[in-house]
Amino acid sequence: MLDPFMKSLGFEAEIPEPGRARVWADLKPEHLNNWGSAHGGFLYTLADSAFALASNSRGCLAVALSTHMEYIKASRPGVRLEAEAREVHLGRSTGVYSVEVRAGGALLAMFTGTAFRKADKPPALSPD
Amino acid sequence: MLDPFMKSLGFEAEIPEPGRARVWADLKPEHLNNWGSAHGGFLYTLADSAFALASNSRGCLAVALSTHMEYIKASRPGVRLEAEAREVHLGRSTGVYSVEVRAGGALLAMFTGTAFRKADKPPALSPD
Amino acid sequence: MLDPFMKSLGFEAEIPEPGRARVWADLKPEHLNNWGSAHGGFLYTLADSAFALASNSRGCLAVALSTHMEYIKASRPGVRLEAEAREVHLGRSTGVYSVEVRAGGALLAMFTGTAFRKADKPPALSPD
Amino acid sequence: MLDPFMKSLGFEAEIPEPGRARVWADLKPEHLNNWGSAHGGFLYTLADSAFALASNSRGCLAVALSTHMEYIKASRPGVRLEAEAREVHLGRSTGVYSVEVRAGGALLAMFTGTAFRKADKPPALSPD
Repeated sequence: MLDPFMKSLGFEAEIPEPGRARVWADLKPEHLNNWGSAHGGFLYTLADSAFALASNSRGCLAVALSTHMEYIKASRPGVRLEAEAREVHLGRSTGVYSVEVRAGGALLAMFTGTAFRKADKPPALSPD
Repeated sequence: MLDPFMKSLGFEAEIPEPGRARVWADLKPEHLNNWGSAHGGFLYTLADSAFALASNSRGCLAVALSTHMEYIKASRPGVRLEAEAREVHLGRSTGVYSVEVRAGGALLAMFTGTAFRKADKPPALSPD
Repeated sequence: MLDPFMKSLGFEAEIPEPGRARVWADLKPEHLNNWGSAHGGFLYTLADSAFALASNSRGCLAVALSTHMEYIKASRPGVRLEAEAREVHLGRSTGVYSVEVRAGGALLAMFTGTAFRKADKPPALSPD
Repeated sequence: MLDPFMKSLGFEAEIPEPGRARVWADLKPEHLNNWGSAHGGFLYTLADSAFALASNSRGCLAVALSTHMEYIKASRPGVRLEAEAREVHLGRSTGVYSVEVRAGGALLAMFTGTAFRKADKPPALSPD
């Protein structure tokens, strides 16, 4: 299920049901920015991964077209981060997903992703 | 200049002048998604890093509030990626930056970032 | 409470509590695009107005920095549209609001807005 | 070429070449917000209209999926506003457009729009 980049960052994931996904990671020193909190790209990658897993859980390939990220709160190393994606809309050719990134209950970031669905291609999920 | 997450991904960077930044990376197998092209989070982190460097090159701390990413073209391992940030607006409390991500001339993604500027705090750039 | 542009489009609004706002409008022929559904700018203005009212309900001036709109479903003339804004985050200098646009229960569009708060200035709400 | 909502707001437009569009409007008192500058929805509608015209100038129907707006500078009544859309990407099923909104040379707002293209349907441009 996890792709190479997710694995290299230590992510874990589950797809509780089609259209939803959760991804976790421990925030380590190599994931930080220069002022000691989670790098914006790391938080985004967690959210984007939940979006990719949720949008590819519907039986066909889904690729990201456009995304939006709101940064709300900084986080410190040692915390466990969680991103949860839920499906806002599933159309024939497109899907919209909303993702919240949290640490211990606090909302750190909010993400919206639009995916293009290729009905004739298999999803981008590896068998493991 | 590079922060821990940028270093862990093998980024290189320069700030040619205040308000601008360029970041490079070689696309390696561990940066890919399950269909063999650059992970959306990797491309985003390249763009976000150029945004962070450009917005923190103005003498005060700048933190990301909101970002937008358009995915245009997939890329293959082995290419050299480049993100270039330019300043669209520099206000007293906020700044807007536009970033293009390219590989060998082809436009892969387009990013827009809004930063909040804290005039009384030093920028988040390490001395190296 | 309504500003000149909201009035010119026939909007009605309420602020049920600080940080929330609802705006309604009847979709009329002059609000349509060339294929007979609500113009994207009309739906956006409904959402943006709910965002403006919610973010200016906190006792200080809030101005829009950055917004994002997802178009999900088309609508037809004659329907009653409703936008509801809720506060996702209220910080000292910024606020984040999420708005849903609906017609008769169906979700037409999803909006996210980031506002800059000027603590020393009164909000932009007229007394009526 | 103009749709009902554009006409009701007094817009004028031209499509100088396929993939590009320009839209103008005079900012009138009924287009303002409560602090006397152009309503965010009015500026957005100008940008969104340029996006719609540019994306529908390619011979097939294009509908907006996702948009992003950055507000940079306020404007005063009496000015002439102009939005210019340029094509960043034209794919088989999607297109990306960048729009700048200006008044007398000053950049007021920056817009990005993603469109879904329906190759088998005619564009949404009226014959006039």
